[in-house]
Amino acid sequence: MKTLIESPRFERFITILIIINAITLGLETSQWVMSRFASLLLLVDRAVLAVFVLELVARVFVYRTRFFNDPWRIFDFFVVAIALVPTTSNLSVLRALRILRVLRIISVIPSLRRVVGGLVAALPGMASIVLLLSLVFYVSSVIATNLFGNTFPEWFGTIGESAYTLFQVMTLESWSMGIVRPVMEVHPLSWLFFIPFIVTTSFAVLNLFIGIIVSAMQEEHESTASDERLQMKDEQDLILQEVRALRAEVRALNR
Amino acid sequence: MKTLIESPRFERFITILIIINAITLGLETSQWVMSRFASLLLLVDRAVLAVFVLELVARVFVYRTRFFNDPWRIFDFFVVAIALVPTTSNLSVLRALRILRVLRIISVIPSLRRVVGGLVAALPGMASIVLLLSLVFYVSSVIATNLFGNTFPEWFGTIGESAYTLFQVMTLESWSMGIVRPVMEVHPLSWLFFIPFIVTTSFAVLNLFIGIIVSAMQEEHESTASDERLQMKDEQDLILQEVRALRAEVRALNR
Amino acid sequence: MKTLIESPRFERFITILIIINAITLGLETSQWVMSRFASLLLLVDRAVLAVFVLELVARVFVYRTRFFNDPWRIFDFFVVAIALVPTTSNLSVLRALRILRVLRIISVIPSLRRVVGGLVAALPGMASIVLLLSLVFYVSSVIATNLFGNTFPEWFGTIGESAYTLFQVMTLESWSMGIVRPVMEVHPLSWLFFIPFIVTTSFAVLNLFIGIIVSAMQEEHESTASDERLQMKDEQDLILQEVRALRAEVRALNR
Amino acid sequence: MKTLIESPRFERFITILIIINAITLGLETSQWVMSRFASLLLLVDRAVLAVFVLELVARVFVYRTRFFNDPWRIFDFFVVAIALVPTTSNLSVLRALRILRVLRIISVIPSLRRVVGGLVAALPGMASIVLLLSLVFYVSSVIATNLFGNTFPEWFGTIGESAYTLFQVMTLESWSMGIVRPVMEVHPLSWLFFIPFIVTTSFAVLNLFIGIIVSAMQEEHESTASDERLQMKDEQDLILQEVRALRAEVRALNR
Repeated sequence: MKTLIESPRFERFITILIIINAITLGLETSQWVMSRFASLLLLVDRAVLAVFVLELVARVFVYRTRFFNDPWRIFDFFVVAIALVPTTSNLSVLRALRILRVLRIISVIPSLRRVVGGLVAALPGMASIVLLLSLVFYVSSVIATNLFGNTFPEWFGTIGESAYTLFQVMTLESWSMGIVRPVMEVHPLSWLFFIPFIVTTSFAVLNLFIGIIVSAMQEEHESTASDERLQMKDEQDLILQEVRALRAEVRALNR
Repeated sequence: MKTLIESPRFERFITILIIINAITLGLETSQWVMSRFASLLLLVDRAVLAVFVLELVARVFVYRTRFFNDPWRIFDFFVVAIALVPTTSNLSVLRALRILRVLRIISVIPSLRRVVGGLVAALPGMASIVLLLSLVFYVSSVIATNLFGNTFPEWFGTIGESAYTLFQVMTLESWSMGIVRPVMEVHPLSWLFFIPFIVTTSFAVLNLFIGIIVSAMQEEHESTASDERLQMKDEQDLILQEVRALRAEVRALNR
Repeated sequence: MKTLIESPRFERFITILIIINAITLGLETSQWVMSRFASLLLLVDRAVLAVFVLELVARVFVYRTRFFNDPWRIFDFFVVAIALVPTTSNLSVLRALRILRVLRIISVIPSLRRVVGGLVAALPGMASIVLLLSLVFYVSSVIATNLFGNTFPEWFGTIGESAYTLFQVMTLESWSMGIVRPVMEVHPLSWLFFIPFIVTTSFAVLNLFIGIIVSAMQEEHESTASDERLQMKDEQDLILQEVRALRAEVRALNR
Repeated sequence: MKTLIESPRFERFITILIIINAITLGLETSQWVMSRFASLLLLVDRAVLAVFVLELVARVFVYRTRFFNDPWRIFDFFVVAIALVPTTSNLSVLRALRILRVLRIISVIPSLRRVVGGLVAALPGMASIVLLLSLVFYVSSVIATNLFGNTFPEWFGTIGESAYTLFQVMTLESWSMGIVRPVMEVHPLSWLFFIPFIVTTSFAVLNLFIGIIVSAMQEEHESTASDERLQMKDEQDLILQEVRALRAEVRALNR
């Protein structure tokens, strides 16, 4: 069974199923299609899901405890599991999340896997600055709620609303015409809060960005440069060896 | 005929024709000009087009099957061909596309050719991350259509409309005041969908960007650094050679 | 006392107090919480503040004049001092600023300290270009006030208002639909002022950004490359030494 | 006279005059100040202008034809000359441009001079891609005018208006909610024009940016790396010399 699961043919079969499922789930959003082929689409969806469940069960059976070693298998597991949660009417969100199953294609196509792996690998290097940004957001949200919460409850009524509004301000979307100008009508000095907030967070995001570029370059640079350096080092070692051997010979001559 | 077509004089002639055509096609958009000089402008346009067609025919005659080897010649071919499609009233779009002919100037001016060549050369390196972005867009569009399609049919009615709206959200244009705040009035938790979408796609686009920078730097770096390294390597080789020759001489002395 | 203040246990204690204070100050923004636990929260706030003041006094006592050598201690000092200013009703801003105390966490967690240190270290390199941007802003604000001050007093009435509006234009927020299109209704040529302003400031900000990247890369590059180069240099020195010793021996042989 | 003009004291005097003039020109925008001190401010303005004119005349007298060799002196010349143009009521723009005189501070402060020099030096490298962008803008403007000129004359009535609107779209300001959605109500397929336009111009601007980074890095890299390499090369030369001398000695021994 292990050979079957790991065979390229089986992978191709799963890939095709994912693509078929992606299409049927897409077609299900169209009312025109659903009024005609609803039963067929649901049948295909169930059939594909059944195959995915069987595949997962087989994998668990084959790899046993090692199943959860590969993060991609855990990803597959959760993505398939979502569809098995019983969907009552007030959990329509879970029905909508069935499409996440299509993301399984990432774990099947190596080049996508590598890209996502690269993106995930960049995350730990961002930890400190993301923590700093969160801190700035929390502090700014509390200040904004205290200062503008009473006069603009819709935008700054609670810490959560303030955080959302400040995120909008950070992305520069309607920050002035939409938010800060109206606020300045009531609190004329509020630009003293918002302009530094924009400059600070932009600068932090910029540095986040620069940090990623620099570390990507460094990695890149090390891997290419080191090869050539190693070669030069080898040749230096060779020269040194030759000179020393020569010296021994001269010394022998000397005696 | 080949010598004529490839002569710099002929190229200059074509360049001037393209620029004249660019000007006349621009002037044709002005009603004031058209009410006076319509016939003249159309005459110039026809004459230039005739020359272009003749030129293309000559090129096909000269290069025969090799004509389609050079992507720039294929580009020229399509750009001229557009103007030959019969334009009935409901194909006014094709009339508007005649101006694309002006893009021929790119294939004539070497520096523009190089820039466009550079931009096109950067595309294959972006393939995986563009595929990933498309996947994220497709999945997000299906989810958005399922969740908000009934309540906001104008923005999320079909997958296509959702994809357009999400593209707008990705560019951060009116994402909050225009889209997400109205949606949150009906679905208070919808920020759980939109904020991660913005962060994820921004991060992916950022990495797309970084990838291009790093590969451009790498290319740059290799070409400049290697020259100097080769020189150092040559000198090392020379030293090694000298030392070995010396050793042979000492050995000869030893005997 | 010095050993107590510098012990890791004491630092952890302060860290926990900061986090507790961050939570209580956050909860104070909620009316629901305040109507129930106001006295408790204020008590915790006072208690934490008391500990912070005691800690600062102890630090001043221990380090004396050296207290103000460390910029982080000065930062702590001001952040705690804000809370001690008597808050009358019209100084509610100062009450809101109490949350700044939470930023003390930066001076306590080393990784955050390093990130902020890095951001601050990038500032001096930006001085010239920031000065240039300020100059462009001042000159543009005066021009905008002179040209559009009478017709659009809300946006360009004073230098300050012009500077704010131009900052908004620089961030590209509603610059066209919100500001420049209305202005162009009255002053049709005003785009001759705004488009160059946008291009110039964007280009300057871009170069600010590039300057930081390049200097970050340079630093990075020097620190990694120099190590390997030093090793190669050492080996070269060794070879040179060996060859010279050999030469001395041959010369001895010669005599 | 030459020694006077080039003395640091004189430069400091001019710098102070520029700053005073910057302040008075700023104060002139305030109606409150003008109603009280108008005559004083105008007097200062005239006096400063007189000194600037005298300085320029002196410089022309000293440097003669070489005066126009230094681009900064030409810059000073134009900036001062603007104020001498007779200002009638309908040339209030020229009055507003007097503040440009303050930009003289750039030519006086070396660090600003260097920054502006750097920005200007980056321009030639951008020529091809700026030319390409202009071409894309011209072609897109003609297409937009032809397609949407009749239905949206306010935005796409003439080539100029189309170019302005497309510039706005390129900066992503209100591109969707403000422009493309209304256009799509009439021309449902117009997104086929706008989305590729946004993607293409963003990609071109991005590459403009990357080009500047890469060339800045390259310059940087060459200047730092070459120094160390030269040292290593010198040592290699020394080793080679020593080995050759040794070989000559051994050969002498051999005879």
